[in-house]
Amino acid sequence: MKLTVTKDELNEAISVVSRAVSSKTSIPILNGIKLEASDSGLTLTASDSEISIQQFIPRTKGERFIIELDQTGSVVLPAKFFVDIVKRLPSQTIEIEVMDHFITMIRSGSSEIQLVGLDPEEFPLLPRLSGERVLHLSSGVLGNMIKQTAFAASVNETSAILTGIHWSVNQNRLKFVATDRHRLASCEVEINEQQEGYNLPIVVPAKTLQELSKILPEDQMIVDIVIEDNQVLFKMENVLFYSRILDGTYPDTSKIIPTVFKTEFTVDTKNLADALDRAYLLSREERTNIVRLVSINDSTIEISSSSSELGKVTEQLEIESFTGEPLKIAFNSKYLLDVMKVMDSERVHFSFTGAMSPIIITPQGSREVLHLILPYRTTN
Amino acid sequence: MKLTVTKDELNEAISVVSRAVSSKTSIPILNGIKLEASDSGLTLTASDSEISIQQFIPRTKGERFIIELDQTGSVVLPAKFFVDIVKRLPSQTIEIEVMDHFITMIRSGSSEIQLVGLDPEEFPLLPRLSGERVLHLSSGVLGNMIKQTAFAASVNETSAILTGIHWSVNQNRLKFVATDRHRLASCEVEINEQQEGYNLPIVVPAKTLQELSKILPEDQMIVDIVIEDNQVLFKMENVLFYSRILDGTYPDTSKIIPTVFKTEFTVDTKNLADALDRAYLLSREERTNIVRLVSINDSTIEISSSSSELGKVTEQLEIESFTGEPLKIAFNSKYLLDVMKVMDSERVHFSFTGAMSPIIITPQGSREVLHLILPYRTTN
Repeated sequence: MKLTVTKDELNEAISVVSRAVSSKTSIPILNGIKLEASDSGLTLTASDSEISIQQFIPRTKGERFIIELDQTGSVVLPAKFFVDIVKRLPSQTIEIEVMDHFITMIRSGSSEIQLVGLDPEEFPLLPRLSGERVLHLSSGVLGNMIKQTAFAASVNETSAILTGIHWSVNQNRLKFVATDRHRLASCEVEINEQQEGYNLPIVVPAKTLQELSKILPEDQMIVDIVIEDNQVLFKMENVLFYSRILDGTYPDTSKIIPTVFKTEFTVDTKNLADALDRAYLLSREERTNIVRLVSINDSTIEISSSSSELGKVTEQLEIESFTGEPLKIAFNSKYLLDVMKVMDSERVHFSFTGAMSPIIITPQGSREVLHLILPYRTTN
Repeated sequence: MKLTVTKDELNEAISVVSRAVSSKTSIPILNGIKLEASDSGLTLTASDSEISIQQFIPRTKGERFIIELDQTGSVVLPAKFFVDIVKRLPSQTIEIEVMDHFITMIRSGSSEIQLVGLDPEEFPLLPRLSGERVLHLSSGVLGNMIKQTAFAASVNETSAILTGIHWSVNQNRLKFVATDRHRLASCEVEINEQQEGYNLPIVVPAKTLQELSKILPEDQMIVDIVIEDNQVLFKMENVLFYSRILDGTYPDTSKIIPTVFKTEFTVDTKNLADALDRAYLLSREERTNIVRLVSINDSTIEISSSSSELGKVTEQLEIESFTGEPLKIAFNSKYLLDVMKVMDSERVHFSFTGAMSPIIITPQGSREVLHLILPYRTTN
């Protein structure tokens, strides 16, 4: 293998695939990035037990030459050092030449780097998916569905299935749900296609979806999603992203979401987020993160937290459209802050069925995104 | 104590004094910031065993009212929470009122925070310095002297005196020196005053001087420096910064700096820094940080590093004004990178007296700043 490639394109591709390089693996080949030069361009691949990412660099982009190919071939290079050194190379063009025993020369300007490469035959093969049934989502919609739900998934590996996001489809609506038993987040979207044959429901690790969302193209490009056996594949322009699907039975979450409410109101998103942030600061010191919410009257709520050592924070907030019974409830402020961070609407709607029942938070005027938080059972 | 103060000025003062709040102290009062309202304004003070910082907020700045005073008095508030909450308060004005038992109310917009304050009588008093002999330095000069030397001080507390910067004065030249036995940095400057009576030499902890340099005013303001007993005081506009002086005898470093050289050359600072950065990347993997420098001919040097596992980096660099014998030397690349980070001149001058003797690095055309690195004794 021998070629010359432009630095920016190589850097870009390395930064994408290196997300799949495990820092913890004991299998040396998985610490590497596989480079494969063919007549059409250069393909980079990295893989760990959860995800695999492959990026293709074409020989030309429009009129511009990206790669000058002297000889096809392939090699696996140590990812960490390769990532760090390519960023720092002095020239805009980088020559890569694989010699005997996979010793690889990288030349750029007055720098010459000799790397101990590994045999690409030892690199794991990517799953082969037939791709007969494909789900199409725009990168913006997919990114938002991940953002709205992934944070609510469990990080506790002992309940492995809850570390994933549950994907289901019902009456042409695709729905993502995540829960860690203390809170739940769901987001749904209409899909314009027939509902059969997508191999849903599945549960995809929230962590890998968060990695995916970091490399989703920003413009509203269509992402093709292929689900087969225990793998889901996201196809973007020049990028393939594979994730493992989690084994196990996801709990039925539909029944824990109340549909009749005793108290409801709407509040300004930013004002609430700021007030909550201050109350959280104090509640954090007590390690419980407990914040209390009390309705003062039809147009005011009070949020408060206290710490025996430090003192007390009290915040009054204007609310709108208050209906129902007076309210007094306590909850984990961190959970509500997490919700406020992903809330895009200017106003946010709260629904309650009592001090011991789930709190429902939705963007004003929409039920496509729904957040649920279980309250604390406190006596005062 | 009762007053109203503008948020920006309070935040600014808190961020300055909180640098002196120890995160490790077991003395609760030292976790606090002392607030003292007098007829002229509000004084904030924080203190740990190494440094004390006091910032004064005057009642007016020009035509603008900063503080509205209702009642003088003082209190000590828990620093960490106070710093975090003031940043997040909703209104541009903040009311602070101390009640019975030092319970303190902080009101801003719709927020009300009640803090458990402590008795200011328990807060340590600042040292009293007579300030008869004062050294005057511009903030820019003082900041640069710290930047050029502090990084070379030892971080090993077992040789406590080497964790400081040695200040001395000789023939109207003030000199800072720092060394950790493997390298040395010195910076000197002419002072326009008589040399007697400054109570020099002293050794000031490098860490506290680095803290000082972060709050030095950016414009070329004069800093008054008072040295007395075991304290040095830096007086800036509205800020007093006290540092402990280290006890002990500083080694005589004047004799280890060679004055006659066998090889000298000049090289472009940025090119060298970049090449070194790449060579360091590989040498780091070996944990030795060893980089080799070899003169190829009168106009070229080669910098290289190697790792048995990863490979080899080789960099060729153009040099100028080469004089003397051919050169082959090995050194810790991290030490030279640290020097390159503080090097302001476009070209840098190297002087050598052989493979086993100190390497001297100076900005081209100046000897006010001098860096010294001991080479590695290697056989190849």
